[in-house]
This record gives sequence, structure tokens and C-alpha cells, in this order.
Amino acid sequence: MSDFPAPPARSSPAQEPVGRRIDASAGLRSGPLGDLADFPEWFAAHAERAYTRVRRVPLEKLEGWVTDPDTGDLRHHTGQFFTVHGLRVSHPGAPVPEWSQPIIDQPETGILGILAAPIDGVLHFLMQAKVEPGNANGLQLSPTVQATRSNYTQVHRGRAVPYLRHFLDVHSRPGVLADVRQSEQGSWFYRKRNRNIVIELPEPVEAVDGYRWLTLGQVHELLGREDTVNMDARTVLSCLPFTGSADTADGDSFRGALRRSGDPSAPTLHRTAELLGWLTERRTAGTVATRRIALGDVAGWTRTAERISHDEGAFFHVIGVRVDAAGREVRGWSQPMIEPVGRGVIAFLVRRIEGVLHVLAHARTEPGFMDVVELGPTVQCVMDSYAHLPADALPPFLDEVLGAAPERIRYDTVLSEEGGRFHHALNRYLIVEAPDDVPSDHPAYRWLTLHQLSGLLRHSHYVNIQARSLIACLHSLYSG
Amino acid sequence: MSDFPAPPARSSPAQEPVGRRIDASAGLRSGPLGDLADFPEWFAAHAERAYTRVRRVPLEKLEGWVTDPDTGDLRHHTGQFFTVHGLRVSHPGAPVPEWSQPIIDQPETGILGILAAPIDGVLHFLMQAKVEPGNANGLQLSPTVQATRSNYTQVHRGRAVPYLRHFLDVHSRPGVLADVRQSEQGSWFYRKRNRNIVIELPEPVEAVDGYRWLTLGQVHELLGREDTVNMDARTVLSCLPFTGSADTADGDSFRGALRRSGDPSAPTLHRTAELLGWLTERRTAGTVATRRIALGDVAGWTRTAERISHDEGAFFHVIGVRVDAAGREVRGWSQPMIEPVGRGVIAFLVRRIEGVLHVLAHARTEPGFMDVVELGPTVQCVMDSYAHLPADALPPFLDEVLGAAPERIRYDTVLSEEGGRFHHALNRYLIVEAPDDVPSDHPAYRWLTLHQLSGLLRHSHYVNIQARSLIACLHSLYSG
Repeated sequence: MSDFPAPPARSSPAQEPVGRRIDASAGLRSGPLGDLADFPEWFAAHAERAYTRVRRVPLEKLEGWVTDPDTGDLRHHTGQFFTVHGLRVSHPGAPVPEWSQPIIDQPETGILGILAAPIDGVLHFLMQAKVEPGNANGLQLSPTVQATRSNYTQVHRGRAVPYLRHFLDVHSRPGVLADVRQSEQGSWFYRKRNRNIVIELPEPVEAVDGYRWLTLGQVHELLGREDTVNMDARTVLSCLPFTGSADTADGDSFRGALRRSGDPSAPTLHRTAELLGWLTERRTAGTVATRRIALGDVAGWTRTAERISHDEGAFFHVIGVRVDAAGREVRGWSQPMIEPVGRGVIAFLVRRIEGVLHVLAHARTEPGFMDVVELGPTVQCVMDSYAHLPADALPPFLDEVLGAAPERIRYDTVLSEEGGRFHHALNRYLIVEAPDDVPSDHPAYRWLTLHQLSGLLRHSHYVNIQARSLIACLHSLYSG
Repeated sequence: MSDFPAPPARSSPAQEPVGRRIDASAGLRSGPLGDLADFPEWFAAHAERAYTRVRRVPLEKLEGWVTDPDTGDLRHHTGQFFTVHGLRVSHPGAPVPEWSQPIIDQPETGILGILAAPIDGVLHFLMQAKVEPGNANGLQLSPTVQATRSNYTQVHRGRAVPYLRHFLDVHSRPGVLADVRQSEQGSWFYRKRNRNIVIELPEPVEAVDGYRWLTLGQVHELLGREDTVNMDARTVLSCLPFTGSADTADGDSFRGALRRSGDPSAPTLHRTAELLGWLTERRTAGTVATRRIALGDVAGWTRTAERISHDEGAFFHVIGVRVDAAGREVRGWSQPMIEPVGRGVIAFLVRRIEGVLHVLAHARTEPGFMDVVELGPTVQCVMDSYAHLPADALPPFLDEVLGAAPERIRYDTVLSEEGGRFHHALNRYLIVEAPDDVPSDHPAYRWLTLHQLSGLLRHSHYVNIQARSLIACLHSLYSG
């Protein structure tokens, strides 16, 4: 400890508030560095140099991975990376009140970081064309840094992660726009969190091969293309301190209502104190008990030499893959992955209330959540997994989403979940304007504005990964 | 589900903002119902009717409680209430990197609720004169409702809890001023949380015997008296959406700086985004691993027929008591309690920065925390527990607190921790103005304003119970 330096009060920086600068960047699909005309070419060129070849390998023959003789758990021989074990879940009152399942346990917290910097006065974001073995299409647009703790402590013994140093010892610098641990898929991961970080530099650093500075408007344009922007980029973008505008020229339009939704002063259906109280009540009332069990004791799932599958063919398989990569940290490795059984539907119903767009969020329980309940999309389901379940297990609002008239569908794009752990996990992401008579006094659902969601996203354990993706998609409709 | 009712936008109520009304109530030590002149008499009269007789009983002979033959864990024969088991803690890098200890496991979430209502336009709070077996002085001023889940689901088979109905199904009503689960002592409880709720009613309800409507100024006056306001009242009060004022007539005074500290527009040393990032970093870097173990396997502690004690006489004892009560839910019962070995020092150093009071908070790890780190007081320690530890285990800033000149000590009162589980757990609570040259670039400490702390207190797992008590004490200095 040294002496206390004379402290400047730093809460009011001279430049424009960051929310305004983010907003301005979101409005530019053509920036000081040009537009996206050359993007496909740049992407394709990089895809030729950076690729993976992925072969399925029986779990029994997965190099470097062992099956624990006592428990049947799958783990790396070093004890690093992650483990697949069993989880017993008890959720009294739910359509399926009791079950067990395989789940991934990866206790370390990774870093998902995006560097931002002004270029000719416009905020830009350094994005990466990155290949992941689970991607259906090879390359996707990713954050500047996407590193597990094993990555950055060099357990992989691979190459150093570019730009990583900007995200270490973050708190000692100014320019932190967001730094918050957020949950990942609570049905597949047990209490997994990653740090979502955005750091603004005073000046841009050089974009090395495979990296590119983009305006937020350009990232948003790419978010509208099938399976182009990866999950890790979407979650980090959702944590940006967006702002809206109460007096846009857009008037009564959808976009006007959307932009007002981000404005702190716009009216809200529920006071934030009420919403926090409602979440507290959902978390206190819901008693979801989970207990780690041996993978070999998971009931209703069968393990063959090849893989682990649910006996009704529902949910997902645990498979093994051999990856041979170019342009990635290591040259070749093997690993288990989760392969979902079908394409999911992930959707927000939205509605204009007093001219302000509100989003219908679901206080959702998933067995891997840290704290019982997080806000999820209005609908989040894989249809194929409901075949063997009672009819009342089908989620509410599915009809309103899938039966919506085309003019009510504001966003409809297939996107992937994370390609490092999930194999071809594609979901259809939708934002749908709800009809005025949508039933919505369901006790587990509430209408929130984007500003209220942004406030919650400053903290951990409020908004699940699928809802965060949808929030990034909603922001992408700010302009364009 | 029924149809969606035409939603009024309710975020801007017609009446004065709640922060202002809280502020106004805090300014009144004499209100429409009079002052506190008759308080001692009222308290004493209630103490004659409501009291407990507490006798120590050897753990072996605790009626209704059993020692598990396999683990040595102490539990109620019904499986209700709570369990005392062991915890093994590993905290690499800490002065004591590895230890095990007994800990209370009480997984259910109780309710700590205060009713508020306007009386002649002044916000009042319904407080209770309540006896708890662990109180050194019998009666203390408590929240309207203080109920474990066992209480309110009638496991005690005692009398119904007065006013409880106001705190059930809270989210369906307006008037929620606060509703948030907060942690309790992380060294004594394993992941214990209680709901801290304040509900504002449109009109006051009748105060039955043992209850009294008070202005916040009156509660604050009582907070300055030794061991009068209980811990549960203090934590609920700390969650009130206080506000301050940037333009008080107090000028350069301590009180002026204090009131500016609650104002949202006052300058802050650190932006809130920076503070959240710092906390994220502390939580990611600190790897505190805890594992439940059998109480019989706790090393360094010895169990006799009477009690369980640390071999160096440090920390606390687990004792047994027989309670015979009048004026409480049940007539008599036995239970284990935690009895600390000495009186603790719990203190905030505060400092005026640009005329705004800042509080020096410590990003503190306690083994029972849900999420690694919470903000605690600048100093939180029991001196007697350090005798057997290395010298560098003594906490920073202890000298600045204990050696402060009298004119720098703004608050100095002995208060108790919760009397339902802790036996005579008295601590000296202090608020001390730090000298200008206080060293304060310690990486685990940051200066925050009261407004920043209030923002964090809307959410769980940010501010520990001792710091919340100190925040209530700080608010009590707003006027008087």
C-alpha cells in the first residue's frame, strides 16, 4: 500500500456518454473503414487458412479422455478442461418433477472479451473470424478474445491468445464498458459462467490477420445473416450499455418503439422494484434441488461404445470427436461434445405499450443455474424433445410465435450455440410482435423494456444466454 | 391465463418519489404520533410480558436434537429448522489457506419484512418489540415480521405470525419498496439468505400489542442506543431506497457530505461500471473452494458433552440452550446456538472526496457466501481470534479505526447479531472519518458512495450483513 493519490472525481468524463456513442456506432453500416462489401471475400479467405476437420470417434476411444471406473464420469486424464457427470434434478410442481441427466461441469471462468476503440470518432469493435469444431459452417464472427482459463494459462500448450493482455488486470484501467460474469446453457452446463468484458481503448490497436474493426451497425448487419455471428459475440454485445432515445423521428413505427425501449426515461409497465420483487418471489418459491450423481447412475439414458443418448431419443447425445485444426491454438485434439437432437425455437414476443416496446420474459428454471431462476426468452424449446412428454409440458406462447403473420415477424435467423462444446447446435431465433390480445398474466412471465433488461445485465444471473442472444438481435433492429 | 388487461404505465406515480418521502421521514424525530419520550416505558412494559429464560444444556442432552451416528452432524429429529455440519475451506493465498469448521446449514429462505405507511403525510414504519433467546438484553426493536419458513408454514405449531399475510404473494401488489434476498454471516451460516422486504401500504394498519409505528428519524434515534435495534431490522432498513440531496444547507459539514453521498448526481471516485468490473475480477481471481464434511471430521475443534470449541479457544463455540418463553410463538424449545468468543470490531472508514462522503468497502471472502466475494466493512474482526494466527493475518486499517481521534468517530455503538441463532453476539460498530493520508490503494478495497451502495443493495450477494448494518447506521446520521 502506498499513499492515497489525490482522487479526481471521474464519474463525468468530458466525452459524450458511452450510451450515445454506442447508439451512433449502431447507426453506421458504412464507416470510416468502408462497408461490408468485401466481407464475404475476407471471411472466405480466412476460412481457407483456418479450418477444422472433425471426425466422430466412439467415446470409448477418445484420446486423452478416461471413463472413471467408479462413477462412469468422463474426464480428461489431466483433470483439466471439463468433466461430464450426472445430475439428479427435483423440481416439484413442474410437468416433469424429477429426472436425471448428463451435464458438463467446467468450473473455471473463461474470458469473452471485445475491444472497442474510436476510429475517426466512431466507436468500432475488434471482431475475429474464428473456427470452432462444433460449427456447422466452420467460421463465425467472434469476440476479440474467447479464452477458457486453460487457454490463457496455457494448459493447451498452444499459441498465445492474441489481445489477451488487454483483458487481464482489467480493473486497474479506465475504459471498462462492461465486465460481468454471465451464465451459459443451464440444461447442458452445471453452473458455468464466463466473464463478458468490453474494454474501450483510447486508440485502436492493429487488427492482425483474422481480426477486423467493425462498427456496431456492421456487426448488426451480420447478425441478420444465417449462422454468422457466434454465441460468444452475441452475449458480450448484449452486455453493452446501450441507450435509446425518447424522441426519435421514427414516430409510431416499430423502430421508434424499440429505440424508446432503451431510454431510461420512457414509461415502463412495471416499476423495476416490482420486477425485482417478482424475481425474488420466483426464486424463493421455486425449489429446484440438484445433486451431482455418477454419470453411470443417470436413469433413462443409455451409454454405448459410441455415445450416451436419452432412451426416447430426446434432448441431446454426448458424442466424441477428433478435431484436426489449422489456424487455432493447437493442432489436434479429441473431446466429448453435446449434440442436440433437433433445431430449437428461441423467441421473444414483443409488444408496444404506451409507444414503448416491451419484451415478454420468462422466469425460467434450468438445472445448471447458480440461483434457481433467470429471465429467459418467451419461448425456448426443442420441439423434438416433447414427443414423449405430457401435452401440458409444451411451453406457453408457442402458438403465438409459430403462427404469427409474416408482417409481425421482426427477426428470424438461424444461429448456433457455442461451437467449442456443442456440435451443430442450431436454433431458430425469432422476434415476433404479439397480437394485442395475447394472454399475459401468466405468473412466470413479465413485460420488460430494453432499458430494464440492460440494467439487469450489469449483474450476474439475471438473464440467460438465449435471452441475451435475442437482446443482441433486438439491438440489431435499431437501424438498417 | 385470462386476457391481457389494458396496461397503465405505472412507472411514474403521482406522489412524491419514494426516496424523498424516506428522506423526509428520516428528518423527523418527533412525528404526528409524538416523540420517543415514552419509548423506554413502552419497551419495559412489553419486556415484562415477553421474555425468555435461557439455560445452557449440554449438546448431548438437547431435547429434540440428534447427533447423526455416521457424521456427528447435529440436526433436529424432524429434519426441520437447521443442521450443524462441517465445512472444509480452501483459500489459496490467504493467511490461513486451509481450514475446517462447524457451520449452520439452514437452506430455507425466511422473511424479514417491514410495513410502511403514511400517517399525516409522513412515512412511518411498523416496528416490533421482540425477544430472542440469544439477546443479551432480552427485548430489541425488530422488523414487523421476522419469520423462518418453518414459522410461517407452522412447523413450530405455534401462534400465527402477525402481519405475515402482507408479505405473502407480494409481487402482485404495488407498494413494494424493496424485496431482495440478502446473505447473512458467511462465517457462521452456509449460504443462508433471507428475504428483506419493505411494503408500503396506502394506509396504516392497527399496531397490535408489542408493535409501534415510528418515523425513520425515530428508528434512527434508537439505532444510536446500545443494543436496541436488532440485526434483522438493520438489514431491512439498509435496503430502503434512500436518496440524498446534492444541495443541502449543510455545506461543508460531515452531514452535508453524507447527504450528498446518497444523491444519484453527486460525483463518485469510481464509475459504477469500474466497481462492478473490479468485483467481477475479485470473484474470478479468488478461488475459495468449500466442501461439506461431517461435523465429526472437523479438524482443530473438539466436542465435549457440553459444546464444540476451537482448540485454541478462537472464533466461537457451538452450545446448546433450553429456552422457555412468554409472548413468543411457542412456549419452550431447545436448540444449538453459536456463541462467539469475544466482542468484534465492525467499522467503516469514510472520507470526503470532492465534498461527497465515500465509504471504504472491502471485497471480502467468507466461506458461506453464495458467490465468493461480497463487500464488507473496512474492518470486520474479533481480536481474540487472532491470538494464535500469524501477525499478517491481522486485518488492514485496524489501527486507523481503533486509534482514531474522538472527533473523527461519527458512530460508536454496541449492537448484536441475530438472537435466534447467536448467543450474546455483540459487536462494536464504528463509523470513523479516515485521515487524508490513509493508505488506500489496497487491491481488495474501494471507496464507494452511499448511492452506489444503495444501487448494489437492490440485488443479492453484493453487500454483507455487517456492512448492511453499518449502512443503516450511516443513514441514521442524516439528521438528529
